[in-house]
Amino acid sequence: MATDSHRILVESTKRLLRRGAISHLGKIVNKTHAADLSVVFRSLSIAQQRKLFSLITDVEQKGILFSELDTDTFQDLIEDMKIDNIVSVLESMPADDVADIIGRLPEEKSKSILDKMKTAESEEVEDLLRYEDDTAGGIMVPDFIALREDVTAREAIESLQTEHSDVEMAFYLYVVDEYGKLVGVSSLRQLVVVSPETPLKEFMITDVFSVQTDMDQEEVARLVARYDILAVPVVDGSNRLVGIVTVDDVIDILRKEATEDILKMAGAGEEFVETKSIFKSTRIRLPWLFASCLGGICAFYIIGRFENSLSKVGYLAAFIPVIMGMGGNIGTQSSTIVVRGLATGRINVRDIWAVVFKELSIGLILGLVYGSLIGSVAQFRYSVGALALSVALAVICSMSIAALVGSLVPMGFARIHIDPAVATGPLVTTSIDIISVFFYFSIATWFLGI
Amino acid sequence: MATDSHRILVESTKRLLRRGAISHLGKIVNKTHAADLSVVFRSLSIAQQRKLFSLITDVEQKGILFSELDTDTFQDLIEDMKIDNIVSVLESMPADDVADIIGRLPEEKSKSILDKMKTAESEEVEDLLRYEDDTAGGIMVPDFIALREDVTAREAIESLQTEHSDVEMAFYLYVVDEYGKLVGVSSLRQLVVVSPETPLKEFMITDVFSVQTDMDQEEVARLVARYDILAVPVVDGSNRLVGIVTVDDVIDILRKEATEDILKMAGAGEEFVETKSIFKSTRIRLPWLFASCLGGICAFYIIGRFENSLSKVGYLAAFIPVIMGMGGNIGTQSSTIVVRGLATGRINVRDIWAVVFKELSIGLILGLVYGSLIGSVAQFRYSVGALALSVALAVICSMSIAALVGSLVPMGFARIHIDPAVATGPLVTTSIDIISVFFYFSIATWFLGI
Repeated sequence: MATDSHRILVESTKRLLRRGAISHLGKIVNKTHAADLSVVFRSLSIAQQRKLFSLITDVEQKGILFSELDTDTFQDLIEDMKIDNIVSVLESMPADDVADIIGRLPEEKSKSILDKMKTAESEEVEDLLRYEDDTAGGIMVPDFIALREDVTAREAIESLQTEHSDVEMAFYLYVVDEYGKLVGVSSLRQLVVVSPETPLKEFMITDVFSVQTDMDQEEVARLVARYDILAVPVVDGSNRLVGIVTVDDVIDILRKEATEDILKMAGAGEEFVETKSIFKSTRIRLPWLFASCLGGICAFYIIGRFENSLSKVGYLAAFIPVIMGMGGNIGTQSSTIVVRGLATGRINVRDIWAVVFKELSIGLILGLVYGSLIGSVAQFRYSVGALALSVALAVICSMSIAALVGSLVPMGFARIHIDPAVATGPLVTTSIDIISVFFYFSIATWFLGI
Repeated sequence: MATDSHRILVESTKRLLRRGAISHLGKIVNKTHAADLSVVFRSLSIAQQRKLFSLITDVEQKGILFSELDTDTFQDLIEDMKIDNIVSVLESMPADDVADIIGRLPEEKSKSILDKMKTAESEEVEDLLRYEDDTAGGIMVPDFIALREDVTAREAIESLQTEHSDVEMAFYLYVVDEYGKLVGVSSLRQLVVVSPETPLKEFMITDVFSVQTDMDQEEVARLVARYDILAVPVVDGSNRLVGIVTVDDVIDILRKEATEDILKMAGAGEEFVETKSIFKSTRIRLPWLFASCLGGICAFYIIGRFENSLSKVGYLAAFIPVIMGMGGNIGTQSSTIVVRGLATGRINVRDIWAVVFKELSIGLILGLVYGSLIGSVAQFRYSVGALALSVALAVICSMSIAALVGSLVPMGFARIHIDPAVATGPLVTTSIDIISVFFYFSIATWFLGI
């Protein structure tokens, strides 16, 4: 459903809710895909959301909605739902999604839910909860098809119809030995192409690509993306198959990580806040601006030291914005390229000096270009040679240092395993501001002899 | 293969190339996955790349490498390859990847390649070249399984073994009527679960989700991501099935779009440049800094007009950085949230006034908070009430206007179908700089009566 259809759906839902046209609304809700419903949900008030949710009859649709909603919306929604009703929805969902939801609930709530769930399912969920949220173990599903290598193609197909009939994303059949260790893989397609009595070991691929339970989810996502596979098997320390990560989860991870990186780089929090209230958004964005505020106060104490020079040569101040702006912008370029390069694997954290040297060279070249340009404008406006030279030199310094800081800081952070995206926004720009201003005034007072 | 293993592979490849250990290298190359080889390729010089490429024996591996390489690297690589050799590699590749590559080549080259290819394959490629690069038609593959609705499950499976044995990503079987119009879909899995003589029409899903050939690729990718499907059928204006877009291409699109957006927002070009030479990078980044340079020059002419006030009250200049910094940072927050929200579909372009109003409110609240804080510091340092008040007011103005401009500009651009990411970087920050400086000096000269 395209954006415009969503708009229409949201509007007619709101209208029908206002009019209390419950039976009409019920019909619409129950034939709408849960992914579309979740878009509608985000535009409604809590009371409207509860109303709409109560109209859904299909428990699986409720389940998809549960996993699509933001943590906040979800908690508001279930606040006065009966535990039994919540449990019946959760039992219809894949275990990884349930673990995801339960992991974010307050402990008493999650405990009472797990107690009420069927033993088999709550055990699956509790197994998953043992792994860190953002690792292969935390995002895998325990539903997969594992067969022994002497099983024939015909028997494998039969198992799809019987014992494995509930496996959702069945494109690969995994082959395990007597200890449950992963030894091979076959596609569902291969299974119907070979003659029925062929045993798996004769056509399975033995060079199976797998990941460990503790691999970081971003790394898993990158691997799935790079090798164009639909699911990757997850094994424990002794190579026993314990789950699979499917491509649909990989897409979600890649998108979420990209959004997080973008927001962090802009110093706008980690989670998308646009849908939250004004006060909530304000609270999240407030602390990120503090770095820039502190930096500004530093800059003002630095400039304060040059007050005398400023009273003598008032136009000195006129160049502060252009020097700060040029430094800030090239610094943002450098740090963005480095952060995104690290995230997509195009830059290796071990190449720190090569990357920093390259950025510094670019900063120097661009500094020379723009320094000459801005210096010429200064000369044209004030006809004071020493001033023009100071401005040109300050631009060169500011841009070179900005490229250096902009690349060095995120590379250094990545090296010591701190998320480089955090380093990019306010932190880098603020330090560049301070350094630029300091260099400019030092150079100018010396050249102008004031 | 993880990052560290890539590093080792790159190093040993370089070492073996230096030593001329061709046969050893050949063995390594031919057992390495093409996706890993492409990582190695990027770290080599052109001469080394040609050498390494000549060692690959498997034509399919060569094909994967062709589609993984950057346009530049690819063109360097094939420059002195014989057309026949290029053609034999292209013939082993999926038609959409071939169309992608050929579409980026100079026209004589692409024409001579198409002339040499087998008619059937070059026709497929030429068909794809008719569609815009970034639409569903441009990214679809023409390899899919389409059967009539009275075909039985058994017959469908047989067709997988015979006529459709070359379809690569076969997870769905599409059902078409006598005119080739799409009427249903079945999963491969469903096919083996039902009894063999059941005709497709009895178990196919008739509510098929499809997209038109001219739908934008980002929209297609978003839909596939939202509905968790592995492939989406592409139909022409009369609902005839003409191709499918598979999930692996969707992942590539989502990642590429995220990278492009991030780079555009930082004013660092559109394509990832880190792997290119210093001079190439410099050339790409140079023009993006021009906006900021022009803006800086504007700001300096504006401040020049207040030269008199500056000579009288030198410390006025000390607050320029903090006022510009606070405005710039909140402006970046607003524009980033809007750009990413539009890209992920969490913000609708029609909600322009609601979004802008919300951002303006947040700007005003945060402006009041930081304005009071910075004003107090100014009072503490200089004990001039009128100055402190001017600074506080300037911060409030600057932050409110920044939030307004930062949200209004990308929303407005999206409204008139210009990529909002372009609007975010230098353009927004530069205009905020100019406006902030102007307001600050106007307020201060008025309050201080200078």
